[in-house]
Amino acid sequence: MCEFDLITRYFQRPTPQTLLGPGDDCALMRVAPGMELAASSDLLVSGIHFLPDTNPRDLGWKTLAVNLSDLAAMGARARWVLLALSLPTADEIWLTAFSAGFFACAQPFQVELVGGDVTKMAAGGALTLCVTALGEVPAGEALRRDAARAGDDLWLSGYPGLAALGLKHLQGEVVLPEPLRRLCVQRLQAPTPRLALGAMLRPLAHAAIDISDGLVADVGHIARGSGLMAEILLHQLPRLPEGVERAPALEALLAGGDDYELAFTAAPEQRPALARVAAELDLPLWRIGRMAATSSEPRVQILDPEGKIVPWTIEGYDHFREAST
Amino acid sequence: MCEFDLITRYFQRPTPQTLLGPGDDCALMRVAPGMELAASSDLLVSGIHFLPDTNPRDLGWKTLAVNLSDLAAMGARARWVLLALSLPTADEIWLTAFSAGFFACAQPFQVELVGGDVTKMAAGGALTLCVTALGEVPAGEALRRDAARAGDDLWLSGYPGLAALGLKHLQGEVVLPEPLRRLCVQRLQAPTPRLALGAMLRPLAHAAIDISDGLVADVGHIARGSGLMAEILLHQLPRLPEGVERAPALEALLAGGDDYELAFTAAPEQRPALARVAAELDLPLWRIGRMAATSSEPRVQILDPEGKIVPWTIEGYDHFREAST
Repeated sequence: MCEFDLITRYFQRPTPQTLLGPGDDCALMRVAPGMELAASSDLLVSGIHFLPDTNPRDLGWKTLAVNLSDLAAMGARARWVLLALSLPTADEIWLTAFSAGFFACAQPFQVELVGGDVTKMAAGGALTLCVTALGEVPAGEALRRDAARAGDDLWLSGYPGLAALGLKHLQGEVVLPEPLRRLCVQRLQAPTPRLALGAMLRPLAHAAIDISDGLVADVGHIARGSGLMAEILLHQLPRLPEGVERAPALEALLAGGDDYELAFTAAPEQRPALARVAAELDLPLWRIGRMAATSSEPRVQILDPEGKIVPWTIEGYDHFREAST
Repeated sequence: MCEFDLITRYFQRPTPQTLLGPGDDCALMRVAPGMELAASSDLLVSGIHFLPDTNPRDLGWKTLAVNLSDLAAMGARARWVLLALSLPTADEIWLTAFSAGFFACAQPFQVELVGGDVTKMAAGGALTLCVTALGEVPAGEALRRDAARAGDDLWLSGYPGLAALGLKHLQGEVVLPEPLRRLCVQRLQAPTPRLALGAMLRPLAHAAIDISDGLVADVGHIARGSGLMAEILLHQLPRLPEGVERAPALEALLAGGDDYELAFTAAPEQRPALARVAAELDLPLWRIGRMAATSSEPRVQILDPEGKIVPWTIEGYDHFREAST
């Protein structure tokens, strides 16, 4: 099967919200009046970003989900996606499962695949996926990481840390009891992009980011971007899961990547409105700290109940420091 | 050096035409009123799309140029680009040269790099580059490959076939005399995206495509997309270069990819206007054939001066049939 047949067969679906979908030199789209275009690209490499034996259906889902998460973190609506793959072989079973997972993630969020590129790898090459997600956000309303204000609460969505525990389990570093194992592995393999949350946060939050590299590392981007100290209060963090030791669970929560939850800041007056958002989405929102003015270098501090600084050194996942998987 | 420092150091330049450049979850851009957004993604893998020992400055140029060529083929104006790389090592000399080449191509076309992603490869992995180019085209005016009309002339820009000869030379399959060698290698390594031509063709041409997979293969896309027979007249092709045998030179012209010239169709009334475009751009435009209605399967036919069909089987470059480099 040639490259063009592959694209037609596995990656061509109707694109009613697109002027011109896959098959030409470019896709053509109309950005609605009054909207800004939001764009993000991610490259996923087997052995670095996912385990080589990842189920292709899960991989298809996750490949799209992690990029939609970037749109969610800006408060954008997801609209279009371009997908480029390089494959070791044109394996039809793999392609069927991968594309099913990809479109399973695209469908509920009404995202249309508008462009693609498929390449055969050099022998022994690592499967590589590149996704570019495009979305729309009302002009001037995007949630940037440099817009936190002193006095803001610091919030965190969902179930952070579970994905990292799932990875530790798959790598044999911890042993998780059921049903925690299943939950953690599911969070790792099929994260939910928080698009609904991001959209509802636009009028309420000041700054937002998605937790892809780890809570402390990503909140650090908000702190440095906004010139503020981010204070995470240890006793306000979500309770650690039962059935696993405290040390790896806390490390997973503070430094584990791959959760794709949102961290955001909002003025304290928004607490009731955020409680309503949590109820409406049936998604926990944890108020884990605050943003404070600082005369020293902006960064993240973790404080114990007495306000003392808890030493914390693991700064999260960095591809050039540690390629752990 | 960590991932974020790498991006800041090598891939962050001023982006005055962008609302929010690199550094947040997404870039933010404003598409001008009355314009459609054009988008294209390409994945380039070492050993497949370029020779592993390619000079990094040339590679930086070409990585961007091939994607801008897709915008040119739609008649779009290039605006923004996202770049994702996976690198075997964070080699500063390589990164300096690569980014210099990339921005050398971006600058004359006023393209802004708005997003990036840098990943360390698994050991032994092939250097992989993914570019997504974004452009603007006036609503309804894009040059699509399905819009050729029966009776149109078929045109070809520039110096097609030279890049493929340059590759054959580097692979030891032909020996090119100077200065042809230098010209062909330069065409291979630093192609010029025909953005100025594409923009000038918008009011004149019906259909267009860029020649990335080979003349016959790419004109075939116009033929099939438009439901017409494309007739290439052998005696109207550009003259083959001196100093190289006819067979490999003709094969390079008809089936060689990597030229990134434009093939397009236009009504015969446009011949004088197209002659003016050629003069203004100082770029040859070759009228190489015509588009004809057909009751058989739409495809490309090559005709000799008596109108007889010349047998031709090589259909151009397909990554899943032959990974030759």
